[in-house]
Amino acid sequence: MKVIAIERAPATEVKMEGVEGVRMRVLIGEEDGAPSFTMRLFELEPGGHTPQHAHPFEHEIIVRAGSGTLWTAAGEHTLEPGVVALVTGDVEHQFRAGPAGMEFYCLVPHEGHLPYKDR
Amino acid sequence: MKVIAIERAPATEVKMEGVEGVRMRVLIGEEDGAPSFTMRLFELEPGGHTPQHAHPFEHEIIVRAGSGTLWTAAGEHTLEPGVVALVTGDVEHQFRAGPAGMEFYCLVPHEGHLPYKDR
Repeated sequence: MKVIAIERAPATEVKMEGVEGVRMRVLIGEEDGAPSFTMRLFELEPGGHTPQHAHPFEHEIIVRAGSGTLWTAAGEHTLEPGVVALVTGDVEHQFRAGPAGMEFYCLVPHEGHLPYKDR
Repeated sequence: MKVIAIERAPATEVKMEGVEGVRMRVLIGEEDGAPSFTMRLFELEPGGHTPQHAHPFEHEIIVRAGSGTLWTAAGEHTLEPGVVALVTGDVEHQFRAGPAGMEFYCLVPHEGHLPYKDR
């Protein structure tokens, strides 16, 4: 069991190639006894973005605040509160914040979170 | 890939023993190509509640609107926007909405969603 207000989870700057202006809070992880999925909150500054990349695992996304776009080679989707998204494995994608920034929850299988550990 | 505004997903009344005043929207499921986790939104009327029960799978919860409590035998936790929760397997629990109702996202492994299908 874990119940936590998001502001109590530490926010760390994401330092990864292709990333600009992104902070991450790990809200629920393997360490908490979650069997399979890690829940993170990503906070993008105005104009901030995640890398344009693909990976074999999926994302399940819930927009919390602000707005922006989810770019894929097949097209761009508008993201705003009340929108959720599934990015299936191996789809090249990028999250881009608009002028007000953007916050979204991103759930991945634990193995998808490994590259973000100890950064 | 799926990008959807939650109001475009149909809301259905949850008819299950011990449930009162609960509607559910399935936002991301196995049918969408999600490998393992189903994302649902639960909308509880003022005073509405889910069953007091336990099951072997976990919940990962994000409160969207309103407020209420997460009851467990070990104590009650306040739920409000900005709070997330992990309910680990086999923990007896119940979600109870306060006087303004409550909306929360609830992610479960696909097998945990089976009892809600075709209701």
